[in-house]
Amino acid sequence: MAVSMDDDDPLILTLDESGSNTSAPDEELDREDLPNENRGSYDIVNDVSSPATGDYHSQQRSARHNWEMNYQEAAIYLQEGENNDKFFTHPKNAKALAAYLFVHNHLFYLMELITALLLLLLSLCEAPAVPMLRLGIYIHATLELFALVVVVFELSMKMRWMGFYTYIRHKRTMVKTCVLLVQFVEAIVVLVRQTSHVRITRALRCIFLVDCRYCGAVRRNLRQIFQSLPPFIDILLLLLFFMVIFAILGFYLFSSNHSDPYFNTLENSLVNLFVLLTTSNFPDVMMPSYSRNPWSCVFFIVYLSIELYFIMNLLLAVVFDTFSDIEKRKFKSLLLHKRTAIQHAYRLLVSKQRPSGISFKQFEGLMRFYKPRMCARERYLTFKALNQSNTTLVSLKDFYNFYEVVGLKWKASAKRNREHWFDDLPRTAFLIFKGINILVKSRAFQYAMYTVVAVNGIWILIQTFMLQGGNFFPRDVPWSYIIFLTIYGVELLLKTSGLGPIEYLSSGWNLFDFSVTLFAFLGLLALAFNMEPFYFIVVLRPLQLLRLFKLKKRYRNVLDTMFELFPRMASLGLTLLIFYYSFAIVGMEFFSGVVYPNCCNTSTVADAYRWVNHTVGNKTVVEEGYYYLNNFDNILNSFVTLFELTVVNDWYIIMEGVTSQTSHWSRLYFMIFYIVTMVVMTIIVAFILEAFVFRMNYTRKNQGSEEDNGIVLEKEISKEEMAGVIELYRRNCAASEIAPLQKVIAQMDKYEQTSMLFLGRRSRTKSDLSMKMYEEEIQEWYEEHSRKEEYQWQEDVFPSGNRMLSSGLRQRSQTVI
Amino acid sequence: MAVSMDDDDPLILTLDESGSNTSAPDEELDREDLPNENRGSYDIVNDVSSPATGDYHSQQRSARHNWEMNYQEAAIYLQEGENNDKFFTHPKNAKALAAYLFVHNHLFYLMELITALLLLLLSLCEAPAVPMLRLGIYIHATLELFALVVVVFELSMKMRWMGFYTYIRHKRTMVKTCVLLVQFVEAIVVLVRQTSHVRITRALRCIFLVDCRYCGAVRRNLRQIFQSLPPFIDILLLLLFFMVIFAILGFYLFSSNHSDPYFNTLENSLVNLFVLLTTSNFPDVMMPSYSRNPWSCVFFIVYLSIELYFIMNLLLAVVFDTFSDIEKRKFKSLLLHKRTAIQHAYRLLVSKQRPSGISFKQFEGLMRFYKPRMCARERYLTFKALNQSNTTLVSLKDFYNFYEVVGLKWKASAKRNREHWFDDLPRTAFLIFKGINILVKSRAFQYAMYTVVAVNGIWILIQTFMLQGGNFFPRDVPWSYIIFLTIYGVELLLKTSGLGPIEYLSSGWNLFDFSVTLFAFLGLLALAFNMEPFYFIVVLRPLQLLRLFKLKKRYRNVLDTMFELFPRMASLGLTLLIFYYSFAIVGMEFFSGVVYPNCCNTSTVADAYRWVNHTVGNKTVVEEGYYYLNNFDNILNSFVTLFELTVVNDWYIIMEGVTSQTSHWSRLYFMIFYIVTMVVMTIIVAFILEAFVFRMNYTRKNQGSEEDNGIVLEKEISKEEMAGVIELYRRNCAASEIAPLQKVIAQMDKYEQTSMLFLGRRSRTKSDLSMKMYEEEIQEWYEEHSRKEEYQWQEDVFPSGNRMLSSGLRQRSQTVI
Repeated sequence: MAVSMDDDDPLILTLDESGSNTSAPDEELDREDLPNENRGSYDIVNDVSSPATGDYHSQQRSARHNWEMNYQEAAIYLQEGENNDKFFTHPKNAKALAAYLFVHNHLFYLMELITALLLLLLSLCEAPAVPMLRLGIYIHATLELFALVVVVFELSMKMRWMGFYTYIRHKRTMVKTCVLLVQFVEAIVVLVRQTSHVRITRALRCIFLVDCRYCGAVRRNLRQIFQSLPPFIDILLLLLFFMVIFAILGFYLFSSNHSDPYFNTLENSLVNLFVLLTTSNFPDVMMPSYSRNPWSCVFFIVYLSIELYFIMNLLLAVVFDTFSDIEKRKFKSLLLHKRTAIQHAYRLLVSKQRPSGISFKQFEGLMRFYKPRMCARERYLTFKALNQSNTTLVSLKDFYNFYEVVGLKWKASAKRNREHWFDDLPRTAFLIFKGINILVKSRAFQYAMYTVVAVNGIWILIQTFMLQGGNFFPRDVPWSYIIFLTIYGVELLLKTSGLGPIEYLSSGWNLFDFSVTLFAFLGLLALAFNMEPFYFIVVLRPLQLLRLFKLKKRYRNVLDTMFELFPRMASLGLTLLIFYYSFAIVGMEFFSGVVYPNCCNTSTVADAYRWVNHTVGNKTVVEEGYYYLNNFDNILNSFVTLFELTVVNDWYIIMEGVTSQTSHWSRLYFMIFYIVTMVVMTIIVAFILEAFVFRMNYTRKNQGSEEDNGIVLEKEISKEEMAGVIELYRRNCAASEIAPLQKVIAQMDKYEQTSMLFLGRRSRTKSDLSMKMYEEEIQEWYEEHSRKEEYQWQEDVFPSGNRMLSSGLRQRSQTVI
Repeated sequence: MAVSMDDDDPLILTLDESGSNTSAPDEELDREDLPNENRGSYDIVNDVSSPATGDYHSQQRSARHNWEMNYQEAAIYLQEGENNDKFFTHPKNAKALAAYLFVHNHLFYLMELITALLLLLLSLCEAPAVPMLRLGIYIHATLELFALVVVVFELSMKMRWMGFYTYIRHKRTMVKTCVLLVQFVEAIVVLVRQTSHVRITRALRCIFLVDCRYCGAVRRNLRQIFQSLPPFIDILLLLLFFMVIFAILGFYLFSSNHSDPYFNTLENSLVNLFVLLTTSNFPDVMMPSYSRNPWSCVFFIVYLSIELYFIMNLLLAVVFDTFSDIEKRKFKSLLLHKRTAIQHAYRLLVSKQRPSGISFKQFEGLMRFYKPRMCARERYLTFKALNQSNTTLVSLKDFYNFYEVVGLKWKASAKRNREHWFDDLPRTAFLIFKGINILVKSRAFQYAMYTVVAVNGIWILIQTFMLQGGNFFPRDVPWSYIIFLTIYGVELLLKTSGLGPIEYLSSGWNLFDFSVTLFAFLGLLALAFNMEPFYFIVVLRPLQLLRLFKLKKRYRNVLDTMFELFPRMASLGLTLLIFYYSFAIVGMEFFSGVVYPNCCNTSTVADAYRWVNHTVGNKTVVEEGYYYLNNFDNILNSFVTLFELTVVNDWYIIMEGVTSQTSHWSRLYFMIFYIVTMVVMTIIVAFILEAFVFRMNYTRKNQGSEEDNGIVLEKEISKEEMAGVIELYRRNCAASEIAPLQKVIAQMDKYEQTSMLFLGRRSRTKSDLSMKMYEEEIQEWYEEHSRKEEYQWQEDVFPSGNRMLSSGLRQRSQTVI
């Protein structure tokens, strides 16, 4: 198979031709198209080297420039497809392209992130500051202004890229701009007045973080939360309705009992039933009436059965259902978006001479923009992996697999080449290591290690149980510790030498073993040298027991799913933290310094805040109700308090404490926070449910198929192909790329092979699983999509005149690059 | 369509013929079969009328007897199919049949239920009895013995029916027998010693209830719970594992803090982390260490995130997944079981002369045994509904729909006959009622009523809010109450007269409106005549607001699903109560009388049990910790206490109170109870989730199809058919059946119709929904099933020699009937 090395002209499709892009190049079209391109390149040619217009060299050069433009635009399309950026923000001219390129790189992203974080972290040092981090008003206001100026710069770059009209239409950016304005004004006011006023708007600062490129997952979560809201609110209303009915009933039934403080007014009745919804005041709220008439428990049992056990679960069911539905629709729209992106890119990569596919040269050009870090060998292997028909061109149908293939990591296959790291060693060493390798891979060895871990676990438990209090960090290192650590150390050595360090560390479980053993060793050192602060490492010992969970398949499944879920879980956690931040700011503005020891003596929860030393007989008794610690005095304390509110138990003590010190409207804050966390938590539960049920359905559907080890693809490359690729690079003067390719050829020579097998690997993502689960439906979606596309092509995908803009971009952008 | 009225001989299939039951009758087979039957009838003929053997009349008579036997056995098969009784308990001879018939009727079921309830209720009067219901040991022990003797009688009847071998094989019955024996011995011991010993075995009494025919749903729930256990236990172990690890960590980290009572020993550390799992001691358990070092909150946050927010949800996910899977498999096996039952019944109903289907005469004979209460008209309509080919015979394929059709309630269609109840009234009255009818059905009227209800609701809220405490049951009836009640009364009258009472009350919502209005009226009477005990009715007023929820489609959906779920929910509740009962008995045996005011002064929860009058200044302050009320002093108290433990909040106060008065092993009781309720509750949540998600998927799948009003079937009957049916009944001398049929003909004559349309209606069940959801899979199941059947037919469905037993039953049972 030869690699095409001609300098084709890029095929620029007109709107009319777009529907049938595999048709033969149209002469008319060529003539119509070429001047357009030439004029573009003409300008630059004039600028730079001013040769005679129209001569062969300048034409070839202009074609090459056109190609470069096409490569870049295709790469941008593919990036937009990958990041789920809408195509209406696609850069439309050279200025926009420059801004686009400026905005879309990791340095800029990092700047965005750091400014956002800086703004958020400022609340550590502002007015009710963490004591150690308090800064003067001058300093933190200046810092804030600085960060805001950076944000202004970022936004102006964005506007340059999008154009004013698109910028205005982009809702998120508009909200950000408004918040920015408010923050700016307030920061200046603070600087001028030299004192912080009630700045609740600081709660909006998290918008800067949410808008960061790296927080895409958070944005998706927020969208999902907002989409789940309507059904959630419906059921919530039902919940509140029953609450009101029961509050009225409860008021009528129990307010005649004067020793019952929970139902003496309708407001109390409502508040206490709201708290009862969370079970937080449960037996207590019932007790006064229960002690009077035992049958009054029926009221509470019925209320809890309806509200807690029925409607709350209904809430979960509704959210879970909406969630699964949204997940599927999201997957569908992402899939179709990627497909459209690939179509756009494909049209830009097809040449006039070869309209039926993309040659390697074009592909290589694309990849230079799309993944600059990828080495030439990998580019070629990706191309080969895409190319299922084994011709020199990749058709559109093959190109649709772009996103699945481009993530593969390629490695020379071990089967044909070397199996173990020690294959090259002398005979004796080889035999020794081979023996270790076999030993380490044997079941007996594994089970022996499991036994050791189990014995160690029981040992630790017994040992801990024996030393009730007292000095449990002995002066001497206990011998059991040394023995077990030695065993683990030997195991680590055997495994590393038997498998080779790279293979050893490539397994997550081995990595875990390694780090635990390392920690245990550090713990030993800490013990041996009496380093107090490192004692905590000793405490991690029991974690080794986790290794035992490798034994059962269900646990492996659960843990695997857990690792798969981890990024998504982290983003959900971050979303929750963002809510926390907003609430923490509001809480600090209103409630900072409100609770303190012995503060709430007028409330029903005074005990929890009491802090007294008194003498009973001749003993000093410290009565310590610690709840004054759950305050909003600084942002860290607020976060802990909010976490306690999230856990819900005894949250009403915190609420009542604050309420008794402020006004009873404060309860609104706590109730709203409860409802918000309820939404987020329900979503988290629904997410975990959905993910696991999905995974288990997947496992059930694919029962009997081989163990799931990620996606693996095999490709063989012959020597001639390699030589062809090198030749191509040589003509393009990319010397740095050639060296590694020549190394591959040298390797082939060494092992006297005419070809070499490469393995492409990547871990399986949720998207892959979904692909397999919805296999049948996906075909329907595609068909529906392409039908719709035929209708809307002319209006939607290329809005009127876009073709002109697109070529305009190619024209003018050359002045920049 | 003429009804066949011949006295066919029943077709008794041999094993060889069973696979192809639609083949023409085999002469050989007839000759082989008839003697067998004749010998059976011969006996009875000899017994009763002793005519000459073999003459025509006796032969015809014997054929009729054979038919009766077949009808009865077919009806038994169909009942077994409906109740999911296994076929291996099918009665095998005349004695067994008699016992079967004795055991399978509502009188016997009722006896079973009453004895079981009696046994359960005894615990109200035994040793730690409810004060008002205390009985002497003589009395309750005698009552118990009596109930146990009844159970012995029931079991002996069962053994007679099943036969000794099957009885031994039937696990549930064997367990019941063993429990019975133990109970018997213990009851006698109590009578002899005249004092109750520690009788924990009383906890097993609920087995008698579970075994009742009416508690089939509870048995299914229990089975489902046990089936969900293995994955549940796996995840529970993971949960406990992390708990142990964190307990060790917590002990090492916090036991050096002497003001921290939660982590001072490893046992405390374990117990408190177990309680923390339920969040019940949350901020408190953290507070001592948090006050020392704020960063210690990380330990608790990590623990709760892993255990509560991750693994607990994992538990739900795993149970939910298992649950959905089990539901589907259960549906499949029930479906196939019913199908097999129908096949069995069909084979018994097909006659030798007409092997290709069941004639109405046979069907009528079957229905006489299967549904004795059904009237002749309905039987014929059911037959017509089954008969989709419109011939005189129902084929096996049609007969498969038996269970779907037999539940239909038939009514003459309103379309052809009378539309409104007032159609027969004189012209003026007709016009008035017609006007009311149109008014009542109009949207404007509905919305006007909604507005009234809303205004009433707000009125009640404001009114309640205004009378803060004081005498809120005024001497005079408030005018607003009268006004609203009048409006509701007028609405009720209008609706009843406009729709007719029957149509009015056939809607659940109208029924609800009616009862609420009735209650409000009773409340008015209570107010007017100052009847104190009826005041609670006034309190139900706000429930009228529920009518507002008719407005939105989602609520209607939710409430409909709720009503559909209700039976299942009730059975789940009963299952939970059965667990409660067992735990209550154990709790009473060990902890009755253990807690009392001021009992637990040595424990950390002493405050909750404190009950003191003390004087501060010149005021008497009653410090009342009501927790001593949460005790196990009698079974009612125990139930309330267990409910409080189920709600989980502050359950550790109850646990610690009891523990401080007994030994620390008592904690095991509470922890086990927590885990058991966790299992049951998770199942309940999974059930609600599954049901709603299923329902919503169903709605989504059937979007656009007509509103769901249950299953409706139309059948038309002509006059001639009716006459034929009457003729058939006349020949069978069933005079009582003829009268209503003749009435139908008279009606047709009156309206001068040659035919009459009937509508069969029933509400849609979960099974119908499942049928539609799994449509495609069901076909696969059937195919797989019939394939398997062909293989296993000879061994399984008719175990060796069963054919002989089956005919033996026909032989000997005639001596009984």
